[in-house]
Amino acid sequence: MKIDKNKRTKTSSGFYVSQHASVNTDNPVPTPEAEAPDVLRVAYMELQVTDLAASREFYVDVLGLHVTHEDDNEIYLRSSEEFIHHNLLLKKGPVAAVGAFSYRVRSPEDVDAAEAFYKEMGCRTERRKDGFVRGIGDSVRVEDPLGFPYEFFYEVEHVERLAWRYDLHVPGALVRLDHFNQVTPDVPRAARYMQDLGFRVTEEISDGETVFAAWMRRKPTVHDTAMTGGNGPRMHHVAFATHEKHNILAICDRLGALRRSDAIERGPGRHGVSNAFYLYLRDPDGHRVEIYTQDYWTGDPDNPVVSWDVHDNQRRDWWGTPVVPSWYTDASLVLDLDGNPKEVIERTDDSEMEVTIGADGFSYTRPDDENMPDWKKGEFKLGNQL
Amino acid sequence: MKIDKNKRTKTSSGFYVSQHASVNTDNPVPTPEAEAPDVLRVAYMELQVTDLAASREFYVDVLGLHVTHEDDNEIYLRSSEEFIHHNLLLKKGPVAAVGAFSYRVRSPEDVDAAEAFYKEMGCRTERRKDGFVRGIGDSVRVEDPLGFPYEFFYEVEHVERLAWRYDLHVPGALVRLDHFNQVTPDVPRAARYMQDLGFRVTEEISDGETVFAAWMRRKPTVHDTAMTGGNGPRMHHVAFATHEKHNILAICDRLGALRRSDAIERGPGRHGVSNAFYLYLRDPDGHRVEIYTQDYWTGDPDNPVVSWDVHDNQRRDWWGTPVVPSWYTDASLVLDLDGNPKEVIERTDDSEMEVTIGADGFSYTRPDDENMPDWKKGEFKLGNQL
Amino acid sequence: MKIDKNKRTKTSSGFYVSQHASVNTDNPVPTPEAEAPDVLRVAYMELQVTDLAASREFYVDVLGLHVTHEDDNEIYLRSSEEFIHHNLLLKKGPVAAVGAFSYRVRSPEDVDAAEAFYKEMGCRTERRKDGFVRGIGDSVRVEDPLGFPYEFFYEVEHVERLAWRYDLHVPGALVRLDHFNQVTPDVPRAARYMQDLGFRVTEEISDGETVFAAWMRRKPTVHDTAMTGGNGPRMHHVAFATHEKHNILAICDRLGALRRSDAIERGPGRHGVSNAFYLYLRDPDGHRVEIYTQDYWTGDPDNPVVSWDVHDNQRRDWWGTPVVPSWYTDASLVLDLDGNPKEVIERTDDSEMEVTIGADGFSYTRPDDENMPDWKKGEFKLGNQL
Amino acid sequence: MKIDKNKRTKTSSGFYVSQHASVNTDNPVPTPEAEAPDVLRVAYMELQVTDLAASREFYVDVLGLHVTHEDDNEIYLRSSEEFIHHNLLLKKGPVAAVGAFSYRVRSPEDVDAAEAFYKEMGCRTERRKDGFVRGIGDSVRVEDPLGFPYEFFYEVEHVERLAWRYDLHVPGALVRLDHFNQVTPDVPRAARYMQDLGFRVTEEISDGETVFAAWMRRKPTVHDTAMTGGNGPRMHHVAFATHEKHNILAICDRLGALRRSDAIERGPGRHGVSNAFYLYLRDPDGHRVEIYTQDYWTGDPDNPVVSWDVHDNQRRDWWGTPVVPSWYTDASLVLDLDGNPKEVIERTDDSEMEVTIGADGFSYTRPDDENMPDWKKGEFKLGNQL
Repeated sequence: MKIDKNKRTKTSSGFYVSQHASVNTDNPVPTPEAEAPDVLRVAYMELQVTDLAASREFYVDVLGLHVTHEDDNEIYLRSSEEFIHHNLLLKKGPVAAVGAFSYRVRSPEDVDAAEAFYKEMGCRTERRKDGFVRGIGDSVRVEDPLGFPYEFFYEVEHVERLAWRYDLHVPGALVRLDHFNQVTPDVPRAARYMQDLGFRVTEEISDGETVFAAWMRRKPTVHDTAMTGGNGPRMHHVAFATHEKHNILAICDRLGALRRSDAIERGPGRHGVSNAFYLYLRDPDGHRVEIYTQDYWTGDPDNPVVSWDVHDNQRRDWWGTPVVPSWYTDASLVLDLDGNPKEVIERTDDSEMEVTIGADGFSYTRPDDENMPDWKKGEFKLGNQL
Repeated sequence: MKIDKNKRTKTSSGFYVSQHASVNTDNPVPTPEAEAPDVLRVAYMELQVTDLAASREFYVDVLGLHVTHEDDNEIYLRSSEEFIHHNLLLKKGPVAAVGAFSYRVRSPEDVDAAEAFYKEMGCRTERRKDGFVRGIGDSVRVEDPLGFPYEFFYEVEHVERLAWRYDLHVPGALVRLDHFNQVTPDVPRAARYMQDLGFRVTEEISDGETVFAAWMRRKPTVHDTAMTGGNGPRMHHVAFATHEKHNILAICDRLGALRRSDAIERGPGRHGVSNAFYLYLRDPDGHRVEIYTQDYWTGDPDNPVVSWDVHDNQRRDWWGTPVVPSWYTDASLVLDLDGNPKEVIERTDDSEMEVTIGADGFSYTRPDDENMPDWKKGEFKLGNQL
Repeated sequence: MKIDKNKRTKTSSGFYVSQHASVNTDNPVPTPEAEAPDVLRVAYMELQVTDLAASREFYVDVLGLHVTHEDDNEIYLRSSEEFIHHNLLLKKGPVAAVGAFSYRVRSPEDVDAAEAFYKEMGCRTERRKDGFVRGIGDSVRVEDPLGFPYEFFYEVEHVERLAWRYDLHVPGALVRLDHFNQVTPDVPRAARYMQDLGFRVTEEISDGETVFAAWMRRKPTVHDTAMTGGNGPRMHHVAFATHEKHNILAICDRLGALRRSDAIERGPGRHGVSNAFYLYLRDPDGHRVEIYTQDYWTGDPDNPVVSWDVHDNQRRDWWGTPVVPSWYTDASLVLDLDGNPKEVIERTDDSEMEVTIGADGFSYTRPDDENMPDWKKGEFKLGNQL
Repeated sequence: MKIDKNKRTKTSSGFYVSQHASVNTDNPVPTPEAEAPDVLRVAYMELQVTDLAASREFYVDVLGLHVTHEDDNEIYLRSSEEFIHHNLLLKKGPVAAVGAFSYRVRSPEDVDAAEAFYKEMGCRTERRKDGFVRGIGDSVRVEDPLGFPYEFFYEVEHVERLAWRYDLHVPGALVRLDHFNQVTPDVPRAARYMQDLGFRVTEEISDGETVFAAWMRRKPTVHDTAMTGGNGPRMHHVAFATHEKHNILAICDRLGALRRSDAIERGPGRHGVSNAFYLYLRDPDGHRVEIYTQDYWTGDPDNPVVSWDVHDNQRRDWWGTPVVPSWYTDASLVLDLDGNPKEVIERTDDSEMEVTIGADGFSYTRPDDENMPDWKKGEFKLGNQL
């Protein structure tokens, strides 16, 4: 079967493919004339946590991330496959929040490019030749047009890749940092700005008019980050990849054994978007962490954009398992360059949760079939309670 | 750590173990003097279905069971490891219901023993030397004291075990029939009668007074059947085993691909009770089918009985995932020996659903911790809806 | 397809099934009149090791067995699912050897039965009311007619089952003790005696005349022990089960990471016999340990006996991977009741290794196809070396 | 631990890392002044086969590749994740050989660049605006400096990605084309030319002087192709990826069930190089196919080059399983642009097989330990045969 490249085509799996993402916006961030930096991939998240010991227990003892460095105020962690200094920095602070979404760029010059790019957009930037954190050299941090603290760097200390060190791997071993997910009120505006930054949209959820979420990538996976419609700027989650699905199940089993099953917020399940197998956890501060495996190659320039109908109840979970409301509503604050929480702006577009569940929402498994069984209607469907 | 055999001991996993099940009842079925038949294992379920073609699609095309024989009125199916004629008989009929819960006994004489055992209890029995269905010889069917149509047989036609025929296996291959699960109003009464029949209780859920469910076995797994408290006699589910957890996930993925994800009612997840990985499906008639893997050896005569607190929210799902209400309330009718549905008697004891969710119920992850996050409170917890 | 129960029938998988094992012998151990004890299952092996620290590292640090008790001279280990005191006892001694193959029987009286059974056969027996080792009560040890030190007991200290303690499980977690494997010169004689002891043969390898190996069970799996033709009495291996195949692969990966890959002797692979996935390791003393998963239910009294042609090169490995010679030739000594190694008697029947590889041997993948590629001919096939 | 970027550093896993590959050559292919095309990734292999029906059975019925198009002379196949027309083209022909190693480039202009690049090197090239095969547009084919038929294209027909079509997936589903592997006499010369073509070396096997093999990539995995030292130009193998390790095991099981286990040449096992899980098959013509999963991210420009000692017996198999000689010696012919087999030139450098096994070779598991057990010495180690 041939996909017509010029229009949206329905696939036999129920979603649509097209050559271009539907990221039209009346309110774009003006595209800078400066060339965007060449972003390689998500590199690390700086997470401010209120109880460092509790966070260590979660990320090291439960999840098995490897400690590159730690002291009384911060812990640098990496996944088993990583050769740069860290993928996660836990930093003790007064409030649970994200200090930086950090990307690695292809060359030292790309840090200059990033600085120029954001300066031209009128964003606050801060450059530090010795880096903001251990293990990372010359970096620029910015408050981006959406209000997120983004960082770009090239210089980094190499550490040993522990991929072959199976003696150090736990049953739920985290192999690499996979992506970020950000909450922002206006998804098309955000996606358009990210395209200027050189990202490509791989998947989106929409109803033909409103775009509820969009996924975008630099590395050839489904995403380096995604924009989820909601009150923002907030951090929705940070995601680590495992090799296999049983690794993810092992994390759930371990949390059960530790009587910490309440750290499991949603899943495990199979995503519609990305086709990946997933699990969402909440860390001791409520920061959401996704464990994720097996999405698909997106590295071709004409990689088809996948578009999901917001009313397709297999879009967020291929098995139709209802999304819990907290997953839609909760997210972490982000910090400005002074370390103060950014003000959260309300989304004014439709809410995905409201159009799919609740009194006025609807979802379908088969487009022409209105009768979804009760167990698929979602836990908060009006009239579903006892 | 030594478990004291004479009393209930709390384990480090949060449940209790003891040497004896708490199946006290004021209203027992009188124990017959006739010796119980020596039951080997669950052998097959006869399922009356209203649309044979739809059922065939579900059990053969989706689940990959192997057809031993089929005609216009019935389909005989077996799992990949089975060497007896069938594990599931789909029989076309006017109403969705269970025609027989069939057990294999150790010898031809045990069929006589079964007949005498039930006759002494005053149950209606019917003996057929040539069997009630294809592939099965001399059998007795009874309406047991709880109202269930039980069958016992030894003679059976052997068929080829397809365990080595990997060329015929689907990604979600069902390896063997594992167990039945029955709904009955009075669990201790039911368990006591099953003990007379030679079954041993392996696990139970209680609050110290009321027993909400009990699991019992002949073969050395957690169960051949379980008794679930509720309006009965009804059939809660029939369960098939896979080899690995990914086989169960593959069934979900396949259902999603077929846009039949609404056949997934609950799971996949990890049980607390049995420690098995599970999934609950609903067939085209609404009959519930469990896919199940990796419980534990129970064949020692002093195998510890595991007892779960009904308020422990890891008892039914080790990850604390809320049970959907339909799982508690829906079940299939059963037929009497004339093929008419048995009248359903209401349970008068407490309902597990009501004591754990809803306005008056409560559950915990950690016994001393009252604050369960919203996403763990269950979809029908009062005040949780939008 | 119906299997005729009265004769050997070729299956579509290439092996044969029949109702009775071909264990004819001219030289039987006379059947005692005393009733055989009711053996439940393999319970533990007592392994004499020459370097306790090295063995601890292997069984605890690498394989993840759980320590029930340890001191300077012995270590008691159990698998994650076990509730009896131990499945493996490592005992420091002057020579690498097996001190006991220990079985659990159904009742205290069965220990008396075992004692009488072996006494009547003229075997040396020793009864100890307080047991020979920690955690085990009243036991009898015997030097059986084949020269093996067998033990039978019922009384045992219960310990906590760690099946739910996923926080303690390693990626290659060993779930239960599965079986022993013994080397003895005359397999039919051995099988016949084991049948008297109440074991049932489940599978065998033969050429129609000579029986090269036979598998036999009490619990309803493929075996509690097997008899492998060769110089004996010696212990071929002791086997532990995992839940899934990836657990076995994880053990290999871990050994590679520890630069101990030379502990891997054969596999991982899929057995023909038993249909299980397997791996053979050698411990620091050279004792062979199998890791095994996913054989099939054999608990029906008319379970078909599977018979493999010795020339079928998928019998020992379903993928046709050649067996390494050491696997055929090496085995551990066994001790008599005084702790002295038993003399090893040579096998006079044909050797499986010789009839399948080497100058005069042959094997086939397809019965009518003589051209097996070089890589399948086995590493020692004449003319195959450089 | 910090890796010094300027020199070769031994890791705790036993191999070395450095910033630059040791691809020194006295006999380089002169670097063209023309800019190299921007190669995206391996796209497809054109395989000439002598019995199209037999090949179809192997690649479609056994391996489950999806047919995009087929007629009496050719079959176009793709993996489940692919959205371009095909990953494998089976073409009927008089001799088993490779017609093209085809790469996709980033833009239409890169086809021009490829043509100029090879023309400058004096290679024979052929440009076809409508492509050489179905589904592919404007392409250039070249006989590269090593004698291999390389193809470069951008234009391609899109087809539906079947990643979500789990109803079509077999237990051993092939997800994507992963890499090629080529046999060539002079590895450093080959690697140097491939670097000119824009490839980066990720791993290599050497003894400090001779380079025995090198892996090189465009996409950020361990390789798009590898150069294996030997008589060439020949094709060593083409590799497809699965999602999980059990998918690879399922292929073995299926081959056993079909009594085609002799199609398995080597593995399954864990590679040292690449850290991937692998299996090598031989198709009906003897073409070697690898099934491969779970290597690591290599997309950073300073990704450390991994270097393995040729005497490290965990380099090719992390578990130390001996490599079968056919794996070293057998390979497929390649065709020139007229469809005639290229002459094979003998390697004059040391042979990896000879320096590691046989009378003069040696390998180690632990560098200082000379005593490798017999089962690890390799099947052709002198003195090992019976």
